[in-house]
Amino acid sequence: MDPHVATNIDKNMNRYIAAVELEKSPRLINHGPTVLVSARHGGVDDVMAAAWASALNYDPPRVTVVLDKDNRTRELVERSGRFVIQVPTVAQMQLTHAVGTRSLRADPAKLAKSGVTLFDMDGHDLPFVAGSAGWLACRVIPEPHNQDRYDLFIGEVIGAWSDTRVFRDGHWHFERADPSWRSLHYIAGGHFYAIGESFDVSETTTPGHAAS
Amino acid sequence: MDPHVATNIDKNMNRYIAAVELEKSPRLINHGPTVLVSARHGGVDDVMAAAWASALNYDPPRVTVVLDKDNRTRELVERSGRFVIQVPTVAQMQLTHAVGTRSLRADPAKLAKSGVTLFDMDGHDLPFVAGSAGWLACRVIPEPHNQDRYDLFIGEVIGAWSDTRVFRDGHWHFERADPSWRSLHYIAGGHFYAIGESFDVSETTTPGHAAS
Repeated sequence: MDPHVATNIDKNMNRYIAAVELEKSPRLINHGPTVLVSARHGGVDDVMAAAWASALNYDPPRVTVVLDKDNRTRELVERSGRFVIQVPTVAQMQLTHAVGTRSLRADPAKLAKSGVTLFDMDGHDLPFVAGSAGWLACRVIPEPHNQDRYDLFIGEVIGAWSDTRVFRDGHWHFERADPSWRSLHYIAGGHFYAIGESFDVSETTTPGHAAS
Repeated sequence: MDPHVATNIDKNMNRYIAAVELEKSPRLINHGPTVLVSARHGGVDDVMAAAWASALNYDPPRVTVVLDKDNRTRELVERSGRFVIQVPTVAQMQLTHAVGTRSLRADPAKLAKSGVTLFDMDGHDLPFVAGSAGWLACRVIPEPHNQDRYDLFIGEVIGAWSDTRVFRDGHWHFERADPSWRSLHYIAGGHFYAIGESFDVSETTTPGHAAS
């Protein structure tokens, strides 16, 4: 087993991880964060970054994600029919950029060098990235035309969890968590935004620019 | 013509709108904003909100968006084969929520009541929502299986523009614009986040929670 794979996840972290209701689990990515996609096949684990992921449906819970043909992670997804989407945090920005730019084909030590610690979830033979804010374990719904023509994969969520310090009771609580827990939203060229201020629509006033 | 359709857009707004290179245009939604989807067919215009939109490809520029079967906008998209994705701002939060909850079928005055002002772009017979931060005019790439089974539409970007006060030279400049220009990221129950702080990955330190 690779030295970076910690099967006994730090107990302090573990006690904050709780299951998310499957029917609410797409909310983990409703706000459009950049995600980490991980997969396992034949004793190989890989993790990549993906800015192009989206919820697709609540019931059954489904998501889409774009996986380039170049990526080793994609090959593991195609072979295993499973993947994990995790929501990385500002504290994981360097890690997110590293797994998004390093290749496991070129560097077998990619994950260790990128600062990735993996852990297990009972009942799922999948690699989960420690320190993330949320995790969606997914089964690929095979759509060969979408996969071949568009690099577009559809997954059904078969397990979901969050770190309750930032997502609990079916809702994000970024505004009450440390800023290092905020989700990442990638643009290009190493440039990220963190998710920001929260608003409830009932508190807003009239439409803006259009009326001004 | 509907009274809310302003063909002569406010000159002060118009001078800030500039074309975006098509190959960079998916960057307008890379960071996962909630978008407004608009469409026109047979003299009818409608606008809806969609949290589930994503970039799909840069060259050719393509995007995905999930359009519920309930929506009149979807019907207009299917009939015309065209739609606009626009990136609304914090100043348009009430408008975004209003077009996302009101139905044109139930209320023919939906757009006016929601505070929507539409304008034209030369060469495109499509309704554009004034006051947004960016616009992607799209042609539907027909994929009947995706549309029927998943409510998933794929569009090729055939025109792109931004308000240069917040997106110019192929990049967002939220950090240098008024906070009312920030993009919206919807969760559920009327709860939005605005995009927040900007980071360059070179400025960050070691990976966070996983290592702490």
